[in-house]
Amino acid sequence: MRLVVAIAAYLALTMGVASTQEHSPNGVKTLAPEGAIKTTGTWALGTRAGDFVYVAGMRGIDPKTNTLVQGDEARIRQGFLNMKMIAESEGASLRDAVRIVVYVTDMFRFRPLVNKVQEELWGRGPYPPRTILEIHRLNQDDIFEVEGTFYAPAKK
Amino acid sequence: MRLVVAIAAYLALTMGVASTQEHSPNGVKTLAPEGAIKTTGTWALGTRAGDFVYVAGMRGIDPKTNTLVQGDEARIRQGFLNMKMIAESEGASLRDAVRIVVYVTDMFRFRPLVNKVQEELWGRGPYPPRTILEIHRLNQDDIFEVEGTFYAPAKK
Amino acid sequence: MRLVVAIAAYLALTMGVASTQEHSPNGVKTLAPEGAIKTTGTWALGTRAGDFVYVAGMRGIDPKTNTLVQGDEARIRQGFLNMKMIAESEGASLRDAVRIVVYVTDMFRFRPLVNKVQEELWGRGPYPPRTILEIHRLNQDDIFEVEGTFYAPAKK
Repeated sequence: MRLVVAIAAYLALTMGVASTQEHSPNGVKTLAPEGAIKTTGTWALGTRAGDFVYVAGMRGIDPKTNTLVQGDEARIRQGFLNMKMIAESEGASLRDAVRIVVYVTDMFRFRPLVNKVQEELWGRGPYPPRTILEIHRLNQDDIFEVEGTFYAPAKK
Repeated sequence: MRLVVAIAAYLALTMGVASTQEHSPNGVKTLAPEGAIKTTGTWALGTRAGDFVYVAGMRGIDPKTNTLVQGDEARIRQGFLNMKMIAESEGASLRDAVRIVVYVTDMFRFRPLVNKVQEELWGRGPYPPRTILEIHRLNQDDIFEVEGTFYAPAKK
Repeated sequence: MRLVVAIAAYLALTMGVASTQEHSPNGVKTLAPEGAIKTTGTWALGTRAGDFVYVAGMRGIDPKTNTLVQGDEARIRQGFLNMKMIAESEGASLRDAVRIVVYVTDMFRFRPLVNKVQEELWGRGPYPPRTILEIHRLNQDDIFEVEGTFYAPAKK
């Protein structure tokens, strides 16, 4: 009986510690859903704060291998799917995006592919507000990155 | 009398449908105010979610013709005015901007024009927090784009 | 006695005016904390709206001299510290960042320095979601800029 109490106390303690680490002093929750890509550097996949979910710029990395997907269209699709998975882990669908910003390294080559993938994923719409930019370089000399903000009112 | 009831029921039904399409599962409202430019691709002009209004990157497109305004300064002004109209449709003035991000394709040429137009539109301030960036290319090889986020507490 | 009343009335009036200027019609508060860098153009350092704090793109400007810090790493650190100070003035720590966007003019040269400075400032994490981009040019031909959004629930 004593052992059960000790285990329960230990679990409560460690869970309490985990929860403290996961939330910031003001209550920002750091997201690391199961099945998502792993971050190795000084960044996290996303956060929840109040009713909003903020997803870091996502690229076409396969969560199974943590390496870049081959093929422009497939890689762009994977970037959107990575964003989708993180948003869904907090109860937001793609349709609940309040804004996306799309970064490509060639507007003429990649914007049509972005449009095609969005039609596939959002169906007939409505689509989110989008800002699309051709920039000089992405991490790992990648071709595409998408950053999304979502709305998912916290359960009261 | 029966006809009136039938019409009322029909209106309620169609309005309900419209409202369902306009709002996401979590309550994100897609914005398409009358008089604004028309979107033809996989994006929307803006959203409202909770107390915030998110406007897509706006360029100097004339809503009357849906084509780019001629002249650098006039085009930059039109971009800001397009953003303003969408924000105002949800009860936010330019003064209620919480942040703007300005993208230009030539910092030396266009930043002074952005400053001039902002002085004109915001008067003596306060101005919103701004991040201004020279990027490689915008859609349609345009020179200027502005993305704004606004605060407009929902009427309770 | 009359004088005291007159002074009190005057103070109330001027403080009221100041407060009106500081807040937008919808209640956006413009931030200009003591000790921060001074803005000279058409922009502000940050805003608070509801429970969120929006900090403008910060560069490595020394608040004491209002000029750029020398040395790549020192300048990047100063940019983060400028952001930190503004966030803290509204009760948000670096740990309460919901997202940062980092702009550099050379991914290979400056991303490792950004990582190093973040490790120093955030310790062992968690880190915020981050989007890092190499863009064509920053204001004053600078090398680094960071834009942060923070969560700091308003005291009720």
